[in-house]
Amino acid sequence: MPVRKHRVAVLMGSDSDYPIMKAAEDTLEQFEIETDVRVISAHRTPERLTRFLAEAEEAGVAAIICGAGWAAHLAGVTAAHTTIPVLGVPIESSPLNGMDALLATVQMPGGIPVGTLSIGKGGAKNAALLVVAFIARFDPDLAKKLVEFREAQSAKVPERPSL
Amino acid sequence: MPVRKHRVAVLMGSDSDYPIMKAAEDTLEQFEIETDVRVISAHRTPERLTRFLAEAEEAGVAAIICGAGWAAHLAGVTAAHTTIPVLGVPIESSPLNGMDALLATVQMPGGIPVGTLSIGKGGAKNAALLVVAFIARFDPDLAKKLVEFREAQSAKVPERPSL
Amino acid sequence: MPVRKHRVAVLMGSDSDYPIMKAAEDTLEQFEIETDVRVISAHRTPERLTRFLAEAEEAGVAAIICGAGWAAHLAGVTAAHTTIPVLGVPIESSPLNGMDALLATVQMPGGIPVGTLSIGKGGAKNAALLVVAFIARFDPDLAKKLVEFREAQSAKVPERPSL
Amino acid sequence: MPVRKHRVAVLMGSDSDYPIMKAAEDTLEQFEIETDVRVISAHRTPERLTRFLAEAEEAGVAAIICGAGWAAHLAGVTAAHTTIPVLGVPIESSPLNGMDALLATVQMPGGIPVGTLSIGKGGAKNAALLVVAFIARFDPDLAKKLVEFREAQSAKVPERPSL
Amino acid sequence: MPVRKHRVAVLMGSDSDYPIMKAAEDTLEQFEIETDVRVISAHRTPERLTRFLAEAEEAGVAAIICGAGWAAHLAGVTAAHTTIPVLGVPIESSPLNGMDALLATVQMPGGIPVGTLSIGKGGAKNAALLVVAFIARFDPDLAKKLVEFREAQSAKVPERPSL
Amino acid sequence: MPVRKHRVAVLMGSDSDYPIMKAAEDTLEQFEIETDVRVISAHRTPERLTRFLAEAEEAGVAAIICGAGWAAHLAGVTAAHTTIPVLGVPIESSPLNGMDALLATVQMPGGIPVGTLSIGKGGAKNAALLVVAFIARFDPDLAKKLVEFREAQSAKVPERPSL
Amino acid sequence: MPVRKHRVAVLMGSDSDYPIMKAAEDTLEQFEIETDVRVISAHRTPERLTRFLAEAEEAGVAAIICGAGWAAHLAGVTAAHTTIPVLGVPIESSPLNGMDALLATVQMPGGIPVGTLSIGKGGAKNAALLVVAFIARFDPDLAKKLVEFREAQSAKVPERPSL
Amino acid sequence: MPVRKHRVAVLMGSDSDYPIMKAAEDTLEQFEIETDVRVISAHRTPERLTRFLAEAEEAGVAAIICGAGWAAHLAGVTAAHTTIPVLGVPIESSPLNGMDALLATVQMPGGIPVGTLSIGKGGAKNAALLVVAFIARFDPDLAKKLVEFREAQSAKVPERPSL
Repeated sequence: MPVRKHRVAVLMGSDSDYPIMKAAEDTLEQFEIETDVRVISAHRTPERLTRFLAEAEEAGVAAIICGAGWAAHLAGVTAAHTTIPVLGVPIESSPLNGMDALLATVQMPGGIPVGTLSIGKGGAKNAALLVVAFIARFDPDLAKKLVEFREAQSAKVPERPSL
Repeated sequence: MPVRKHRVAVLMGSDSDYPIMKAAEDTLEQFEIETDVRVISAHRTPERLTRFLAEAEEAGVAAIICGAGWAAHLAGVTAAHTTIPVLGVPIESSPLNGMDALLATVQMPGGIPVGTLSIGKGGAKNAALLVVAFIARFDPDLAKKLVEFREAQSAKVPERPSL
Repeated sequence: MPVRKHRVAVLMGSDSDYPIMKAAEDTLEQFEIETDVRVISAHRTPERLTRFLAEAEEAGVAAIICGAGWAAHLAGVTAAHTTIPVLGVPIESSPLNGMDALLATVQMPGGIPVGTLSIGKGGAKNAALLVVAFIARFDPDLAKKLVEFREAQSAKVPERPSL
Repeated sequence: MPVRKHRVAVLMGSDSDYPIMKAAEDTLEQFEIETDVRVISAHRTPERLTRFLAEAEEAGVAAIICGAGWAAHLAGVTAAHTTIPVLGVPIESSPLNGMDALLATVQMPGGIPVGTLSIGKGGAKNAALLVVAFIARFDPDLAKKLVEFREAQSAKVPERPSL
Repeated sequence: MPVRKHRVAVLMGSDSDYPIMKAAEDTLEQFEIETDVRVISAHRTPERLTRFLAEAEEAGVAAIICGAGWAAHLAGVTAAHTTIPVLGVPIESSPLNGMDALLATVQMPGGIPVGTLSIGKGGAKNAALLVVAFIARFDPDLAKKLVEFREAQSAKVPERPSL
Repeated sequence: MPVRKHRVAVLMGSDSDYPIMKAAEDTLEQFEIETDVRVISAHRTPERLTRFLAEAEEAGVAAIICGAGWAAHLAGVTAAHTTIPVLGVPIESSPLNGMDALLATVQMPGGIPVGTLSIGKGGAKNAALLVVAFIARFDPDLAKKLVEFREAQSAKVPERPSL
Repeated sequence: MPVRKHRVAVLMGSDSDYPIMKAAEDTLEQFEIETDVRVISAHRTPERLTRFLAEAEEAGVAAIICGAGWAAHLAGVTAAHTTIPVLGVPIESSPLNGMDALLATVQMPGGIPVGTLSIGKGGAKNAALLVVAFIARFDPDLAKKLVEFREAQSAKVPERPSL
Repeated sequence: MPVRKHRVAVLMGSDSDYPIMKAAEDTLEQFEIETDVRVISAHRTPERLTRFLAEAEEAGVAAIICGAGWAAHLAGVTAAHTTIPVLGVPIESSPLNGMDALLATVQMPGGIPVGTLSIGKGGAKNAALLVVAFIARFDPDLAKKLVEFREAQSAKVPERPSL
């Protein structure tokens, strides 16, 4: 099946990561991109990942966003099993403030890429925006929406601070 | 001008980053993606960045890969000025082993995404592969090449180690 | 226009940084130095920075103090665009306790300096005091005030602690 | 097939990890434990891991030792797919001195354990010794050998240092 | 006395570590493994450790799990005095978020192994699961229970997240 | 004596720091600013610091640049004893890659500012450039030289990289 | 004046450090060692330190305990000005959890020693105990008290944990 | 036997630590303090430590200096078994640059003190100097030598640097 550029998967390693990863889902929906949101633990449900990836190839998702905490393997393992582009969001759920999740996500050895965003909710939002930016290169309507989003975002920054 | 999915820019903050960033250039060329390789320092040549970005929009590059060391601002500043997707490669040129470049590249606040790869040459190669993966979603020929690349890469891993 | 040694700009990357950066504003005002306080995001409002810097050159500000969190690029990017001296204040707004903002601010490569102060409110106050110290070298009245400030500060430290 | 307590698998993520992981192989052989040494990259050859684990269950290996560098996922992914006990050895092959490999190996979330040893060659040796210690609880001959090994090791520490 | 594979010791450096280490005790009991839970400070009660280890050898415990915070020496010192396998659980009771306990537990030099689990409660649970995995290699009933535990654990992960 | 804006002191904690700190001296001389270069250890020669500061006040130096490694106290202690502005350069002479010197220099509590530059030679050069930038606000000739320096610096960055 | 082995000074950089440093005072008093407790900021009241040290030499204090946070220079600067033995207690008052205070206290270059204890209240208590241990080598009564203290401390550790 | 203030023990965890720890031995000998230098591994030769401590109490050593790398337990374990004051020297023999040895040595929980010096040779020298400083409080001749040592040390710092 051909790639559906308006469909993106959002995976998370644990149900408890959803308050963070919802920022990716919400941002994608803001751009009218359909989302497929799943809980898939690289460690507790590894076979679910394989099953999902077969579906994802079939469904033609444009990209996969993976959020996980601790020794965050989800993005790397997903990237190992597919050529669909994978973005990773480190989540600060361990005592080490997300530094463990950041290094376990970003330090992929050469050959299997994971594009990593910042730790937490801002990173989840940015993962969605980066996918939008990539798709927008091939979708003038989406490109226009992205420019508008960025302009609105700039406009929301006040000139002078207030307490 | 429409996006040319077979054209990608590779920027680096300093001439001395080229031995690392060449891995991105070489990988892109392996996939027959045209590269535009430049030295643009976010700090020493900021106006050159603005000028380049106007050209890049005009030339329709599909993505921009930025490599930098120290307080690596190149990827973030590039992302701030364009909606072309930006990937960042932290380079270990300071005494802190690239940890400064990693944090300065990956920890972008919500709203302006930079997809960050691992520190150094492997990260540069992976930035190229991630761009290829995104473009390949919209280019069946490139998708085929990427699958072949990955298969060849797997095949090169020996079953048994040798000293 | 000539430099007005009693005018200093205080920039911050986000409205939410103001509770920290107000310490710089308050300290400058304590020395009767006029402040120009702005929210300018290096990432979300990059063109606002260019516009501001033109005004700042015109207005002859003596120095620019920049506070930012996460991958804090504001001080470095400001310094890249001007020869007005720039001081940076890392703000702890990310999960990494400000270590990301510190490294992204202080680790500027040779050629474009940012004088970096400590993380948070104390750093914002110190940025103001360092600007005062520099100006005071050329303003005997201010020098006198600074000595008095320092003496008062010493006097406030109790000889014996209390719970 | 029943577990063969004198057979242990030693996996490594890359051929280049062998100079480190050979210390595990050599130590196991010193205790006359048969080794099955393989290069299996969690990222570049994920299907090889699944295939190996089927064989390992079949062959009844007593434990699996996994060494990897960078975002070291090998031990965690192995542990996710089997109930055979897994030990992990972080390898310092990235610019971050093995801190990335350590956190990516040890910080497994609750439910899927990886017993992690120290970074590098000493860790590889210790992984072997820990497996020996577990097996020795059920093998009096091996227990005797382990006690002798430890006594010999103590005896080799000189009372007085020399340059 | 022969090893009793259904008996495991759980030590902790301080009474205040019990809320964390209870996860090891509870998990072992879930597998009907008898536990011997003690407070033994490597620093404040060193002779208690020696006394305990004589008892443990006598009682034939299958393994010893040690949890400690700060400069966590308990696991290493225990391992130095016995050939019973030792697992270590770093506890985040100091200002450094458990990084001190992690490094003090995991970075054992070659010759005396400590299998280290993740920081905190998840690590305590995993220490129990790793002991179970090792014993299960020699106990088909326990092996069956472990497989069931893992299946139940997988089943508990919801397919879709909820807030 | 009035401040001599063309005179700046460069201190270093150890003779062995000179290869790094010479970059500050050389840069200042490039701007025809007279330098007073000294070895003053905050720890081994504390009284020398007091003596120097009396001279420096007398000589009217415009600023003091302090470079030190390890627990780098030189900049902070200098700042404690004078109202002359102090800049600090962390030097990587300890096993911790300069992270100790960075934190010991930059993390000054509120009240006594030290403007900190990046670790090493680039930081030493930048300390000089920041002093120049401050003085240049009150010296149009120096301001002109600084602009020329920056333009020349930009011009030296090649457009295309070479190996 | 001869050394009074039952007199020890306890300094702290800020009044707000007293809740931590009181543990040193209390512990010393428990051993009937007279304390001289002062607030002396290395940065805000440097001349107070010099004045105090003259008094301390005069009063014959046996040792000086210094607690400070941030870029904690108090212990190092004290050690630089006296040959009275100095112990340092890093205090976690900055966003970096005391890591800055630890490195700024412990990483003294060769020649001027500071014996550093752990971060926070436990470190303050231990500083007192280490001073007691040193004095006790020359005071059999104190030695007896120290042994009793240690025995009581051991006895207070419960054999079994409780929630 | 009474304490012999001119006798100090120097322990190290491994023969390979001697090039570092020799700096403690040499410094003590410079003050005509007799040294008892031993290799005692907390992990590989734990019983040797107990035996040594009995001798040390008997011999009346004034203090014990312990140097170790990796998860450096030697100082803490020594302190746990004696009331003789213990100083610790972290040694950078692992890939983590001595940060592991530093935290494992310094972060002792309240009750059992270890005075920790800086990482490496300077720390070894400083451990000796700190012991000298403590003993010198009760030995006017040694006090005089220490003052002379410090004066000579200051005198050796050149006023002006040279390459």
